[in-house]
Amino acid sequence: MAVVKLLGTWLSPYSCKVIWALKLKGIPYEYIEEDLSNKSPMLLQYNPVHKKIPVLVHDGKPICESTVILRYIEETWPQNPLLPIDPYERAVALFWIKYADDKNPLIPKLYRTTGEELEQAAKECSEILETIEEHGLIEGKKFFGGDEINMVDISFCLVAHWLGVFEEIAGLKVFEPHKFPKLNSWAQNFKSVPVIKENLPDADKIFAVLKHRRETLLAPKPN
Amino acid sequence: MAVVKLLGTWLSPYSCKVIWALKLKGIPYEYIEEDLSNKSPMLLQYNPVHKKIPVLVHDGKPICESTVILRYIEETWPQNPLLPIDPYERAVALFWIKYADDKNPLIPKLYRTTGEELEQAAKECSEILETIEEHGLIEGKKFFGGDEINMVDISFCLVAHWLGVFEEIAGLKVFEPHKFPKLNSWAQNFKSVPVIKENLPDADKIFAVLKHRRETLLAPKPN
Repeated sequence: MAVVKLLGTWLSPYSCKVIWALKLKGIPYEYIEEDLSNKSPMLLQYNPVHKKIPVLVHDGKPICESTVILRYIEETWPQNPLLPIDPYERAVALFWIKYADDKNPLIPKLYRTTGEELEQAAKECSEILETIEEHGLIEGKKFFGGDEINMVDISFCLVAHWLGVFEEIAGLKVFEPHKFPKLNSWAQNFKSVPVIKENLPDADKIFAVLKHRRETLLAPKPN
Repeated sequence: MAVVKLLGTWLSPYSCKVIWALKLKGIPYEYIEEDLSNKSPMLLQYNPVHKKIPVLVHDGKPICESTVILRYIEETWPQNPLLPIDPYERAVALFWIKYADDKNPLIPKLYRTTGEELEQAAKECSEILETIEEHGLIEGKKFFGGDEINMVDISFCLVAHWLGVFEEIAGLKVFEPHKFPKLNSWAQNFKSVPVIKENLPDADKIFAVLKHRRETLLAPKPN
């Protein structure tokens, strides 16, 4: 039997994306928690270019980058499809997955910055939400693709869950439900899917870790 | 018969990627040159999120983002495949396509900056080349995937052709053949493929346009 392993960290949205995809497909796997302050030789060997989690190891062969891993999972285990079958609808899904991929790294700036940089981060974040609200979501649809969760929903998980924690740490609110009603319903729908809900890192625990990380990052440097 | 249209600009590597993929597949199309200083209503309608070229229009439906367009072309016209059939090899190809996608926007900084910013851009560019040389290319292979050109080669077109123009404009050299021998052979192989060679924008013409753009960008701003 093929062996599937996942190297990740519990609070990373990128790890969660892979966990959810594997669980939605019903693929058993071994999870290995990485300590990013002391990366394992296995992680360095399997992802020599980026040295980052998540890494999926399938039959001894590593696949890196969460978006690439999700495509690999989809192609290797086609049950419970996470992408539309129709090539045009699939291209639209891939457009939004790329959008999420490009914009996701901007969102954590909210908890990592202060002053003008934080203002700029909040502005960028608001523009991302406006774009998804206006162009990405269709009135009356539960998820990006319709009635079933797919890879686009998973790709926007930072908006649905982590963003709230970053806002709380930064002491500001960008994702106002009345400003982004479609996105707000979508986030509720997304977090209500049993596989998502049962494998979502606890917000209070993420808060504690990232608040400490913020304090370390923003502490005055000794001369 | 399906109608295929491409909105692009002649000097854009992102437009060229789509042109090459269509030509390698033997798909006839109508090319529409966009004036980015005066974007057409068609471009704004078809790509409301980014308002950027290239846009492929197939049977009246728009597909945006060159990487997404290339996947759509591959899935719609499977002849002369541009991705490996094996799921693992395909994941490796997608890893490098994502790497190119993430790093390509850094390379044009070479012709757009000066002083410390230019030094930083040259350093980043050199690191990109080192990574491709060390991890991406395999000794003795003509292309990233073996003996035939594929989507990874196309994704690194900026390195093969445009980078030389940026270096000439900036008056420095990053891509030294003796430092990057595998990458240098690859670039020669890539530009020797008839479809690439016959549809590669002229370096002198790119030089003239971008040198002028640099001068405009770096001109002292009136107070």
